[in-house]
Amino acid sequence: MSEADDFTIHPVGVVRSSLRDTGDAPRQGHRGAPDATIDIHAEYGDALLGIEAGVELTLLTWLHASRRDILQVQPGRDPTRPLTGVFRTRAPVRPNPIGLHRVKVLAVTGNQLRVTPLEAVDGTPVIDIKIALDPPPIG
Amino acid sequence: MSEADDFTIHPVGVVRSSLRDTGDAPRQGHRGAPDATIDIHAEYGDALLGIEAGVELTLLTWLHASRRDILQVQPGRDPTRPLTGVFRTRAPVRPNPIGLHRVKVLAVTGNQLRVTPLEAVDGTPVIDIKIALDPPPIG
Repeated sequence: MSEADDFTIHPVGVVRSSLRDTGDAPRQGHRGAPDATIDIHAEYGDALLGIEAGVELTLLTWLHASRRDILQVQPGRDPTRPLTGVFRTRAPVRPNPIGLHRVKVLAVTGNQLRVTPLEAVDGTPVIDIKIALDPPPIG
Repeated sequence: MSEADDFTIHPVGVVRSSLRDTGDAPRQGHRGAPDATIDIHAEYGDALLGIEAGVELTLLTWLHASRRDILQVQPGRDPTRPLTGVFRTRAPVRPNPIGLHRVKVLAVTGNQLRVTPLEAVDGTPVIDIKIALDPPPIG
């Protein structure tokens, strides 16, 4: 396979949230985001084995409402700040609009995870979940 | 668009590394991984604006050699540990084999970033780059 080839993402679940549109969503989870439910599709339920209340996870989502053709933004949507490459920001607009969210598990019920806090809106596809690691020191 | 639809990832760059195959790669970057070069494809070069030496980034890669059909593993490839869902681990095998890497920028030359440490092997596609955030406290 050529390195230039595209890859296909299969969503593994979906966010269920009281946040209904991106205008309501805080820009990062720790800025007042609510609890939310992650519905994992049945065929991926076995991948949840061992996840329990109290575990911290890194959730990866596909920010399906985000534009993919914008390469520079003013960070924080602040018009006084200089244009910055999206790779130097956490802006949702980017060539592959993947969201990273650090959450804590509140409860697990079948293939549903109740988590907090999560700034993604209702209906956002979930594409991966990993156990959270504190970032190691970099020399 | 249905939430069950697939999405297409366009690689934005590629890892150039002295690590040639996954058997040689440490399992996490802080376990002895080398410096590496990220070649960003020319059409995405504008997204690098503002990245300079000293910046810490979260690099997202597509672990193209990883199996996507394995949902449970023994963490750390340790046969004494119980089977665990891949969403409870950092194993490279997972339905969407996305790698997360925290790196520090050593130098920027045109569309190339020199970074450290990086456990991804030579030829690994890069799919996104974000400024690193220390995880916020979760109450």
